[in-house]
Amino acid sequence: MKPHVSIVTLGVSDLARSRAFYEKLGFCASSASQGDIVFFQAGVLALALYPRTALAEDAMVPAEGGGFRGLTLAHNVRDKAEVAAVLEEAAGAGGTIAKPAQDVFWGGHSGYFADPDGHLWEVAWNPHLIPDANGAVTLPP
Amino acid sequence: MKPHVSIVTLGVSDLARSRAFYEKLGFCASSASQGDIVFFQAGVLALALYPRTALAEDAMVPAEGGGFRGLTLAHNVRDKAEVAAVLEEAAGAGGTIAKPAQDVFWGGHSGYFADPDGHLWEVAWNPHLIPDANGAVTLPP
Repeated sequence: MKPHVSIVTLGVSDLARSRAFYEKLGFCASSASQGDIVFFQAGVLALALYPRTALAEDAMVPAEGGGFRGLTLAHNVRDKAEVAAVLEEAAGAGGTIAKPAQDVFWGGHSGYFADPDGHLWEVAWNPHLIPDANGAVTLPP
Repeated sequence: MKPHVSIVTLGVSDLARSRAFYEKLGFCASSASQGDIVFFQAGVLALALYPRTALAEDAMVPAEGGGFRGLTLAHNVRDKAEVAAVLEEAAGAGGTIAKPAQDVFWGGHSGYFADPDGHLWEVAWNPHLIPDANGAVTLPP
């Protein structure tokens, strides 16, 4: 297996609501979106929205589940002040602030928002991990 | 918000077990890994492993939750035959095959495995979305 992720698919309960949320945040739906799937170019990967129950069916797993997903997405930013700005934008688009922007123990500054289905995004300024213009990050070997 | 994802963090119940699982699959831990966090370069983003309860604390959300996460990661491959090969590799490393490799309705070929904590990965060959050497995919506008 080559170590890479190509797509993150979020299972959603209301496709139109989630599409509107991500579009308000600046994601542009690709013309490859069709039927029940919405694709956004997210830097160099794809972010997809798909009905939650259909996603479970696709993976052939039971759809039951709730609470903490045990997984977070991070949106790294280039400037410390962007953290609070992005969180505010997410709240304005209909998201929920789980953790307001604050200095954190590892030397950065971050906060979290939840999308309309509770999917958690960390918005982080990490002085050791500044993304390039595409949001890509390069770790030391 | 610029539309990008920089890091996917998986909450795990046994850091050593999960690290060994992903290393068997070909992910190389970065020297930026320290304490309770493991970072892998995953194409142009970072895949991180962090204890599940600590991840919930970091996001300031209750840690309770289980069942279907409502989110999947996709590992797109360049050749159809790679799908079954990667699934077999994942099973050999201690993962569980949720869906064996098969032709799917959208014209591709895919299957799913679950990592030791149940995080679901789709392994997919999509003739319309072939990744570059870094696993990056480019959608039509």
